Amino acid sequence: MFAAKSCSHLLLSASLLMGAAPAIHAEEGMWTFDNPPLKQLAAQYNFHPTQAWLDHLRLSSVRLNDGGSGSFVSPDGLLLTNHHVARGQLQKNSTAEHDYLRDGFYASTPDQEMKSPDLEVNVLVGMQNVTARVQGAAKEIADPAKALKARDAEIAAIEKESKDKTGLRSDVVSFYQGGEYWLYQYKAYTDVRLVFAPEQQAAFFGGDPDNFTYPRYDLDMALFRVYENGKPLHTDNYLKWSAKGAAPGELIFISGHPGSTSRQYTMAQLQTERDIVEPALTEYLQRRVAVAQAFAAQGPEQARLVGSTIFGLQNSLKVYLGRIEALADKSIVSKKQADEDDFKQRVAANPEWQKEFGDAWQTIAGVEEKLQPEIKTQVFRRADSRLFTLALQLVQYSAEVKKPDGERLPQFHEAGLESLRYQMLSPAPVYPATEKLFMASALKLNAEKLGNNDAFLQAIVQGGDIDKTVAALVDGTKLADPAVRKALLEGGADAVAASTDPMIVAARRADPVVRALSKQVRDLSSPLVPAGQKLGKARFLVYGKDAYPDATFTLRLSYGTVTGYPYNGTVAPPFTTYYGLYDRAASFSNKPPFDLTPKEVAGRDKLDLSTPLDFVSTGDIIGGNSGSPVVNRDGELVGLIFDGNIESLAGDFVYDGTKNRAVAVHSSGMIEGLRKLYGANALADEIEGKK
Amino acid sequence: MFAAKSCSHLLLSASLLMGAAPAIHAEEGMWTFDNPPLKQLAAQYNFHPTQAWLDHLRLSSVRLNDGGSGSFVSPDGLLLTNHHVARGQLQKNSTAEHDYLRDGFYASTPDQEMKSPDLEVNVLVGMQNVTARVQGAAKEIADPAKALKARDAEIAAIEKESKDKTGLRSDVVSFYQGGEYWLYQYKAYTDVRLVFAPEQQAAFFGGDPDNFTYPRYDLDMALFRVYENGKPLHTDNYLKWSAKGAAPGELIFISGHPGSTSRQYTMAQLQTERDIVEPALTEYLQRRVAVAQAFAAQGPEQARLVGSTIFGLQNSLKVYLGRIEALADKSIVSKKQADEDDFKQRVAANPEWQKEFGDAWQTIAGVEEKLQPEIKTQVFRRADSRLFTLALQLVQYSAEVKKPDGERLPQFHEAGLESLRYQMLSPAPVYPATEKLFMASALKLNAEKLGNNDAFLQAIVQGGDIDKTVAALVDGTKLADPAVRKALLEGGADAVAASTDPMIVAARRADPVVRALSKQVRDLSSPLVPAGQKLGKARFLVYGKDAYPDATFTLRLSYGTVTGYPYNGTVAPPFTTYYGLYDRAASFSNKPPFDLTPKEVAGRDKLDLSTPLDFVSTGDIIGGNSGSPVVNRDGELVGLIFDGNIESLAGDFVYDGTKNRAVAVHSSGMIEGLRKLYGANALADEIEGKK
Repeated sequence: MFAAKSCSHLLLSASLLMGAAPAIHAEEGMWTFDNPPLKQLAAQYNFHPTQAWLDHLRLSSVRLNDGGSGSFVSPDGLLLTNHHVARGQLQKNSTAEHDYLRDGFYASTPDQEMKSPDLEVNVLVGMQNVTARVQGAAKEIADPAKALKARDAEIAAIEKESKDKTGLRSDVVSFYQGGEYWLYQYKAYTDVRLVFAPEQQAAFFGGDPDNFTYPRYDLDMALFRVYENGKPLHTDNYLKWSAKGAAPGELIFISGHPGSTSRQYTMAQLQTERDIVEPALTEYLQRRVAVAQAFAAQGPEQARLVGSTIFGLQNSLKVYLGRIEALADKSIVSKKQADEDDFKQRVAANPEWQKEFGDAWQTIAGVEEKLQPEIKTQVFRRADSRLFTLALQLVQYSAEVKKPDGERLPQFHEAGLESLRYQMLSPAPVYPATEKLFMASALKLNAEKLGNNDAFLQAIVQGGDIDKTVAALVDGTKLADPAVRKALLEGGADAVAASTDPMIVAARRADPVVRALSKQVRDLSSPLVPAGQKLGKARFLVYGKDAYPDATFTLRLSYGTVTGYPYNGTVAPPFTTYYGLYDRAASFSNKPPFDLTPKEVAGRDKLDLSTPLDFVSTGDIIGGNSGSPVVNRDGELVGLIFDGNIESLAGDFVYDGTKNRAVAVHSSGMIEGLRKLYGANALADEIEGKK
Repeated sequence: MFAAKSCSHLLLSASLLMGAAPAIHAEEGMWTFDNPPLKQLAAQYNFHPTQAWLDHLRLSSVRLNDGGSGSFVSPDGLLLTNHHVARGQLQKNSTAEHDYLRDGFYASTPDQEMKSPDLEVNVLVGMQNVTARVQGAAKEIADPAKALKARDAEIAAIEKESKDKTGLRSDVVSFYQGGEYWLYQYKAYTDVRLVFAPEQQAAFFGGDPDNFTYPRYDLDMALFRVYENGKPLHTDNYLKWSAKGAAPGELIFISGHPGSTSRQYTMAQLQTERDIVEPALTEYLQRRVAVAQAFAAQGPEQARLVGSTIFGLQNSLKVYLGRIEALADKSIVSKKQADEDDFKQRVAANPEWQKEFGDAWQTIAGVEEKLQPEIKTQVFRRADSRLFTLALQLVQYSAEVKKPDGERLPQFHEAGLESLRYQMLSPAPVYPATEKLFMASALKLNAEKLGNNDAFLQAIVQGGDIDKTVAALVDGTKLADPAVRKALLEGGADAVAASTDPMIVAARRADPVVRALSKQVRDLSSPLVPAGQKLGKARFLVYGKDAYPDATFTLRLSYGTVTGYPYNGTVAPPFTTYYGLYDRAASFSNKPPFDLTPKEVAGRDKLDLSTPLDFVSTGDIIGGNSGSPVVNRDGELVGLIFDGNIESLAGDFVYDGTKNRAVAVHSSGMIEGLRKLYGANALADEIEGKK
């Protein structure tokens, strides 16, 4: 599964910096839309996309704040993404009486379309290169920490100017280790209504075992409709549905938002990943899965409450276990080492380059050494409570907005406040039982790993028993009510300071501890930016400019062909069919997670079982690409990315076109399912343009 | 695929000796019927088979001289084995007009049952421990080569005595590195008629890519009927058909003839395998596959002629590539090394043991070093011609039978002559085109690898051009006619010596060269027997007597459970269904080797697609087990072994119960196929006891 909200996003070190690597494999690359791989497409496929072709694909693509991608598939704002991207919204709209996650949902008429509590959809409408402004702001500043601060201030100013001028969501993003900075302007939509979702079991057939593998048999799709001013959005920027769907050997494109990659990491950074990040996160995730599973075993309602959480945790866990395996794989590590050695030697061979860039690797290695204990602290200082997170956001928000924009913590810059407030005021329900469960578990792990005297832990529990303190906090707080949050938000610093809500009180105590660690990590990390810039510049000089930047949850274009790969001593097929769904279910005696849904049982004889269901391509993707459209040369939608194969888990570090595959739902399989399993003919007609 | 005729059988070193290893995994083991794993079955499964249960299973099991196993499945001599074991006979009965290999065969009435040209079926009816006699014969002889000769003579005497007394085929076989010798007495049947075979494509769906993998969707079965005195054999020793078939989690037994394993090899012997045997055989096989494929590309009749050969070669090639991978796998090699180190240390810790056994490893290592060049010579000295093989057999036969039994080459001992003559007089057709193709290719590789002056090569070509010489030999010989062979066989040494048949003349020249290499290898290898016996004795002392001997194409009992295993990042199911066959075919757009047969297309709607087709179990098997029956606690047939998964290729050296799996056709899948695809209801009724 490929949702972007993996834990690595919580780690500053993972997003601050990249290194450098030589020759690109055919079909490797997550290209920005300002620098599409035109040369490669011309040389390998004799394909020459026009600017209009590229613009249409970009404007038809969307990013979802739940951590995935999507695309418009009708002129009336119909938006296609994965079931597992829509999962959070399905969970939030569900109750003990209506479990939309388990049972699916279909609005056969517009009035039945169901509003999402806190989903935001972004379309990338503008891109401007602001490298000169951002880099210029810190040009004369020698101290890395001060330079970082100056760049942050400039970034905040650019974002605010753009937001004020255009009303668009405006993010300055960094590419090529700070070699380039771009202002990305997004049209944001927050009235997004659910139209269709299959049952979780149909979308996620095979469950955790089959997750991140192929062959697969999943109908991992969901359809929303984007509204504007209370009416369905009318747009020309939507993808036409392909009549044939993805065909073996065909050239395809993937337009989506890969979350993060570490392909440019130096060996020192990979070592931090291997020795600190992956083991710590794996231990944390394993603990949390165990706690959630024990809770789920208590009964069906408990299982419902944590089902979505377990899904996400197991998904992340499989990612980290895959990364651990990749970093233990000698062929991968020796390739990375050889790449770095080659790069170093080429730099060293030129005295000027050596003088200008030669110290970068050592700088990074020195920073990494200092960062390692801080990273461990960051991983294990968690409250894992939505109420605590809201409390801390309220405390910090009220303090930050009083400061000049350039001096605020990054997540409170003026340009982002609208989206932040939308999240903070979400009406999505909060469940006390799971709040207590996860908060207590997180704090206990914090105590185990960082000691009973850890400052963060003690700021919350103040010497008290963890279970009792957590119970008192969750039972005592009123923050589950969005109106209470709204009052505090509007009341500002005085209201927050005066609040006696126990969770706010605890957050006020934790705030300085959180800020201190954050500052510590940022200060320690700050030399990584100039060092990374050096490597970025050196790489351009050594290897030329045919490069793509590491993924940063910004819109990217990948390309590839629909094709199988060697696996299990034989070959995996380019696509699977509905036959395979029924085979795998029967092969496991229909036992979970390989059980058929009642609709799949009832609909079997209606289906053309040979219809393609899922398929693989060589397109280069990673977590965050979930929900990305797959299109053909004509820009028609032929598939819907939902996962990578098990071999793709090494893709964080290295792309191997012989076996790294993107897994997608086939367009024909979606139509077949909509019509034959769900009787959603009106929806299928709209998608196919037959309305 | 698991047929025993892999090339390793041609290598003396592979069958002469084994080493030692400690602790046995649960469900590991290919147990002789005199020493079944009763303790393990009692402890793990609370199952206590009676002697009658064991005897019935043994007497219902058969060995086929084509290199596989089988079982009786009706009181009227119906014999179940794999299609790929029957393949040779199908090929030999086929013509350009009737391609039974491609099209399958079904005798709906007894008179249509089709005689096999040279198939022999053996049932193990008697076992006697003759260790004392064989070892005693060489007790006073210090020189290893002379001791070997003395034992060989004693073995020949025991075999002849038994054959004279009982009329049974009588083989003395060695177990536990010569720690035990047993006389195995077989009832032999040579009137074996084909009753049913599916199309090659139904039996071998997925072809070479899917070979040695799982999940699989193959109906790899064939049915013969054994006749005695011109009438169907009536027997009480047949396996009843299970009504339910193999169920997940169920305890099962496999009774068959694993060909050879190297689990007791010392590290020095494994090194010979890794550095000499596997690379040389792989190169030889790759060359031969390429030659055969180029020939097949010339037309459909050419493709028919070499189809069966390509099948066998690719099968062997995949085995050797798997072994190479296993011996390059650090976890496997370090496990083997750790086992040997542990064994050595335990021996060394006891001064008496050290004195008696401690030199064995070094002796073996010394022999291996000397043997390596000879092994390479053996691999590349090949004629790959059936006519040349027959000629050499006639030349050697006429010379050997004049000697006392104990002094003959092992393959000409009195007790084995009847079976040998049956083979030599086979009426199976010989095709000049493929004779020339493979003989020329083999001799050219011989020249490349061993030099143009190699004695074997020059004995055949005498300085001439290889292609021309081979053409002249094949065109000039009359040995394709069984009557010509019969006349030479009956004419004896004088007739053979007087023959001017060019192939006989060439074989007469090659005979001394072949004998010299064979003697050289046997002499060099002879210290391996006493050294192996030392290790065998030492292992019993160090690790106790709960052991099974390496495989030697003798009847063995394995046991295990029907269960999936971790694969491809997820889990493989315990069984597959007919749904999966149609999925995999559609997934590859019905392109070979994933194409459906016309009967599979036509019969689709008649099938219950959820019927189990193939399944896996933890039973310990290897090449030669092909066609072995799988039975349940009640001794009922629940499946038919036809392959191992890709992980099982390491099984030559080590058994890993977490992922080593035996692949079988499911009994229900066979009945479903017979009835719904082939309309063979009478046959299905006979099998199910409904007649």
